[in-house]
Amino acid sequence: MRPSKRQAGDLRPVSFQRAFSHHAEGSCLIKFGNTHVLCTASLEDRVPPWLKGQGRGWITAEYGMLPRATSDRTRREATTGHQSGRSQEIQRLIGRSLRAVVDLQALGERQIMVDCDVLQADGGTRTASITGAWVALHDCFQWMRARDMLRGEPMKDNVAAISCGIYKGEAVLDLDYPEDSDAEADANFVFTGKGQIVEIQATAEKGAFSEERMAELTALAKKGIAELVNLQKLTVL
Amino acid sequence: MRPSKRQAGDLRPVSFQRAFSHHAEGSCLIKFGNTHVLCTASLEDRVPPWLKGQGRGWITAEYGMLPRATSDRTRREATTGHQSGRSQEIQRLIGRSLRAVVDLQALGERQIMVDCDVLQADGGTRTASITGAWVALHDCFQWMRARDMLRGEPMKDNVAAISCGIYKGEAVLDLDYPEDSDAEADANFVFTGKGQIVEIQATAEKGAFSEERMAELTALAKKGIAELVNLQKLTVL
Amino acid sequence: MRPSKRQAGDLRPVSFQRAFSHHAEGSCLIKFGNTHVLCTASLEDRVPPWLKGQGRGWITAEYGMLPRATSDRTRREATTGHQSGRSQEIQRLIGRSLRAVVDLQALGERQIMVDCDVLQADGGTRTASITGAWVALHDCFQWMRARDMLRGEPMKDNVAAISCGIYKGEAVLDLDYPEDSDAEADANFVFTGKGQIVEIQATAEKGAFSEERMAELTALAKKGIAELVNLQKLTVL
Amino acid sequence: MRPSKRQAGDLRPVSFQRAFSHHAEGSCLIKFGNTHVLCTASLEDRVPPWLKGQGRGWITAEYGMLPRATSDRTRREATTGHQSGRSQEIQRLIGRSLRAVVDLQALGERQIMVDCDVLQADGGTRTASITGAWVALHDCFQWMRARDMLRGEPMKDNVAAISCGIYKGEAVLDLDYPEDSDAEADANFVFTGKGQIVEIQATAEKGAFSEERMAELTALAKKGIAELVNLQKLTVL
Amino acid sequence: MRPSKRQAGDLRPVSFQRAFSHHAEGSCLIKFGNTHVLCTASLEDRVPPWLKGQGRGWITAEYGMLPRATSDRTRREATTGHQSGRSQEIQRLIGRSLRAVVDLQALGERQIMVDCDVLQADGGTRTASITGAWVALHDCFQWMRARDMLRGEPMKDNVAAISCGIYKGEAVLDLDYPEDSDAEADANFVFTGKGQIVEIQATAEKGAFSEERMAELTALAKKGIAELVNLQKLTVL
Amino acid sequence: MRPSKRQAGDLRPVSFQRAFSHHAEGSCLIKFGNTHVLCTASLEDRVPPWLKGQGRGWITAEYGMLPRATSDRTRREATTGHQSGRSQEIQRLIGRSLRAVVDLQALGERQIMVDCDVLQADGGTRTASITGAWVALHDCFQWMRARDMLRGEPMKDNVAAISCGIYKGEAVLDLDYPEDSDAEADANFVFTGKGQIVEIQATAEKGAFSEERMAELTALAKKGIAELVNLQKLTVL
Repeated sequence: MRPSKRQAGDLRPVSFQRAFSHHAEGSCLIKFGNTHVLCTASLEDRVPPWLKGQGRGWITAEYGMLPRATSDRTRREATTGHQSGRSQEIQRLIGRSLRAVVDLQALGERQIMVDCDVLQADGGTRTASITGAWVALHDCFQWMRARDMLRGEPMKDNVAAISCGIYKGEAVLDLDYPEDSDAEADANFVFTGKGQIVEIQATAEKGAFSEERMAELTALAKKGIAELVNLQKLTVL
Repeated sequence: MRPSKRQAGDLRPVSFQRAFSHHAEGSCLIKFGNTHVLCTASLEDRVPPWLKGQGRGWITAEYGMLPRATSDRTRREATTGHQSGRSQEIQRLIGRSLRAVVDLQALGERQIMVDCDVLQADGGTRTASITGAWVALHDCFQWMRARDMLRGEPMKDNVAAISCGIYKGEAVLDLDYPEDSDAEADANFVFTGKGQIVEIQATAEKGAFSEERMAELTALAKKGIAELVNLQKLTVL
Repeated sequence: MRPSKRQAGDLRPVSFQRAFSHHAEGSCLIKFGNTHVLCTASLEDRVPPWLKGQGRGWITAEYGMLPRATSDRTRREATTGHQSGRSQEIQRLIGRSLRAVVDLQALGERQIMVDCDVLQADGGTRTASITGAWVALHDCFQWMRARDMLRGEPMKDNVAAISCGIYKGEAVLDLDYPEDSDAEADANFVFTGKGQIVEIQATAEKGAFSEERMAELTALAKKGIAELVNLQKLTVL
Repeated sequence: MRPSKRQAGDLRPVSFQRAFSHHAEGSCLIKFGNTHVLCTASLEDRVPPWLKGQGRGWITAEYGMLPRATSDRTRREATTGHQSGRSQEIQRLIGRSLRAVVDLQALGERQIMVDCDVLQADGGTRTASITGAWVALHDCFQWMRARDMLRGEPMKDNVAAISCGIYKGEAVLDLDYPEDSDAEADANFVFTGKGQIVEIQATAEKGAFSEERMAELTALAKKGIAELVNLQKLTVL
Repeated sequence: MRPSKRQAGDLRPVSFQRAFSHHAEGSCLIKFGNTHVLCTASLEDRVPPWLKGQGRGWITAEYGMLPRATSDRTRREATTGHQSGRSQEIQRLIGRSLRAVVDLQALGERQIMVDCDVLQADGGTRTASITGAWVALHDCFQWMRARDMLRGEPMKDNVAAISCGIYKGEAVLDLDYPEDSDAEADANFVFTGKGQIVEIQATAEKGAFSEERMAELTALAKKGIAELVNLQKLTVL
Repeated sequence: MRPSKRQAGDLRPVSFQRAFSHHAEGSCLIKFGNTHVLCTASLEDRVPPWLKGQGRGWITAEYGMLPRATSDRTRREATTGHQSGRSQEIQRLIGRSLRAVVDLQALGERQIMVDCDVLQADGGTRTASITGAWVALHDCFQWMRARDMLRGEPMKDNVAAISCGIYKGEAVLDLDYPEDSDAEADANFVFTGKGQIVEIQATAEKGAFSEERMAELTALAKKGIAELVNLQKLTVL
């Protein structure tokens, strides 16, 4: 029995609030239950130095968490002097996931910086970030299209992410914090709208686990991501 | 004529949303027009080293801004390696303002950390922060009172803040960003509910200005802060 | 009764030593009693990036304190890895105060960096810094004039600063350290030679204070700054 | 055809040199072809603060690369002021992998710090690090056993790691640098001696890839890790 | 011919101003010509962690330079985020030199921190620092003796320092900046009052130099340091 | 009697392993007994900004130590946020020593970065670094000569370094760690192949020492460095 009373294959309630941010070219407040992430896409008229003169654009991401997004207050990263290894790992994952479904040629020599800031955390902040960031990016492309700034269609597919894990011996979908902190294994999946693999990160938290378990987790993730992709499509209709 | 069509003595629409944050002991999303600040109060069972063993508590604050809270994206402070001088200046002001109306003896040896994070900025983020932080702090005290953690009433008065400035030769209340960036003088006032002075910071932006002008700004501020204090009282009724 | 036996409206003994520094284009060792600040003005043949190509100059300031300027040794900022929030706040104030009385067009595309380094501290380091920095800047302009580097007169007026406070219930001028650390309120005033307001920073240190008190502090400051401006004029005769 | 002429399922030549380091309790220089990593295990008589008083030990890891381990010199991390996100991500992976096969109770309240320093890099530095670190850790335990410092057997199983990828459309084992920089997908696998999963990290480098592909990569990894585990066993015989 | 018209074996005019600093237990403003260094000795009631419980004291030093001590303004170390390698090298030398003539047992478990801050630089700042620091330390010991804080006499001998170099083919004493920046070799000598060696640092600046040259430099240094020690003795008479 | 049973004038066994590093233009693993340093020379097609357009090259060095090169593990410099003062002092010495025997004109506008990384430490890491770095640099020049990149011969002479010290009252050559940590005086000598002085750094560790002692140390160093230079010549034959 899951602490939230959900069935093994149930997502938490998911919602997308587009245009949450006044200034950003695209933005989305995504909620996976009590996990709330504000995703903004900022268009910048430059590319990283190593990409200059190649006619292609770039998409990158940064991830942060408000100090009291968590149950106990976390020290503000600006006062520790650097981003944690965890923050850097997550933001690199977000960037790779988005780039997997974008045609960077269509952007021209421009960069889109996607910021994912966790206002409230209850497990799954990286998967919510990727899923919400896709919407923010979609709306940024729409903003650019309206200004005739695109060469062709940059968005080739949807991308969304979900976590699965083995909790009390059972494979379950979309771990919340109480489950995450007690799981035997924890895996994050990033798939495209067509169900192709973009990224899999599976970690044993207590000893190791079998290939059969991995197959169960993968099956749950496919189902969950298909639902998230449907919700993305409804959101940007 | 102000860009927002407001009269010289008009505040922007102000709203307070209590309990915005799931985890914090007290929290408030305050809006001064398009300036939105999330204020959370986090109770910690410790005091700064220099206060140990004195039986008194402490209240301090931190201030931050999401990268795309601003019209052009601002670099994330966690990646620059430190808080800006501006952030530090503002958070010290917020802390001083709150402590001016609190009886620290009543807290016992505990610290309350107030985080003010700007989700969206349109001028006046420090004054909105102070005004909203008071509500978050009030609710944190309520949380403590319900758990019988207080020795007497710590909150001695309201405290609120507003900016005034000289814009196109006229004294106006509650500058928004377009006014702020073009003002001849800019002043921030922090007053108690009884109308006493907690802090005044007045700055000439173009040359210098007269004492008469300062008196006009002060009068506007008194009026504006009285309105804000009324709204605080309605909010926590 | 003030610890120093001064009357409420008395400044400490003030002295200016011009050309203290061999290398700087302008320099002044200013003393407000036991507070000694070395101010140097360094002419640089560049402007900040955001000012390039506009034909105007810039004046900025940095503030520091020798480790044993204080009663207890303070940790050297170079070993803490950054300037304190307090140092940054003060140096921004010094820069703003000087720019308020300078015509930046007359400088051409050049920057003057004013360094205020506290050799010995006894309260009022920021007000001494501003008052001495004006002399260093004046002498830097003189150096430039002798080399025909100025387009017209850059110095439009004097600027000087003084602190006032409420000490043992009485409004007093030019707080020294023992008064400053026990004051009920503390205010710094920066006025021009003509008596116009450049900056006011008033802070309640214990509770809050009334508008009448603020008026008393302002009156004392006017008197004190008028005396400082006279001394500046005598110094640069 | 692979640049190195290897078959799709071939490892590079692998060697382990135990006791490379004079001072460390356990050490191993591991080579996967031209990738050379020095792994040292340092026993420390303390545990992280959050583990104090629980009677258990801890194993953690740090990862670094000599500046000219790479084809073009990389900037020394000590001069950039922090470890890169990549270094932090890898060292967290090494630590998790080792802990998955160790009984931390058997260590008592002690920490083992495993340093993996890349002397020369040609792809696969993280997988070589994990595989070599197991040997260094094994020898550290042997050192402790000889001094009667262990409560029971801490090493429950072997752990080893290998990368696989899709290179020119074909699934291949143990990518070297030329393959790695041109692969369509890249996956790192960490398995125990019994063939259980400790960690899987699979990333699409160009678009996305299918579940069938993932299955091929997993099969190759199982074969490669079985070979590595055999070599570990021969090494510590 | 030296730029300053001095003879090869001439020191610059040397002066010591004791008790320059109001707060420090001992202080000295030392001048070697246009090189001016403020040395303060601060008594602290603690020792470094590795010295605790051994009944001995410690003496250490920090070195800094005001930004405009130099001909061109140098960037403030507090804003660069760390002390330069040069500053650290010099302050370690000052600390070692002082400890060579002090009986640390006589201090008890206390630390003296000597700060050497260069107000104005014209070559030889490290040698002036050591020579002036000895006076500051002497006066700190006097302060302690007056309060009966010493166990016996901590100061066993004088210590002073001077630079020599090969300038335009000739060995000269006490290089000023124009000589220093054009010398073929540059050596710093730290000797005790009895003429024993505490430290020698000799560096070829253009190619290498012979042992005979080294002997000439050493002879000059002995003469110069003997003069400085005499001046120290006259100063603290 | 020395702990290692060596005679006073004996070096430890010395060996040079050229081309240790696959990628570097020149490299050498040098061993002075149990002190092992990997020296790599990296050719870069740029010079420091202050040298641009002058037609000359530059040689610089960086020094590091693996965390477990030492008897007790040392904290990784990348995690402390900066290089230690000691590391910076050593790398500046290595760079100066190499430049003393190189004609920088012959390099053209190119920089060679020499990295000296200590794999294992037992005293004398700086002298081993200099001695090995000369071989790495020699081989880098050979690599350049083969590609016709040099204007004339850049290497004008050999350079090597050794430490000497006063241990238990006797002058001894090439201190190992147990001697170094208990020596009364410690001196590092850098001489050219022709026996000229490049650098001398002599430090009293306990009190001070006489000129006669210094002469003994210098004589030992001459002998030792002559042996090292011979070994360098045999190595690069």
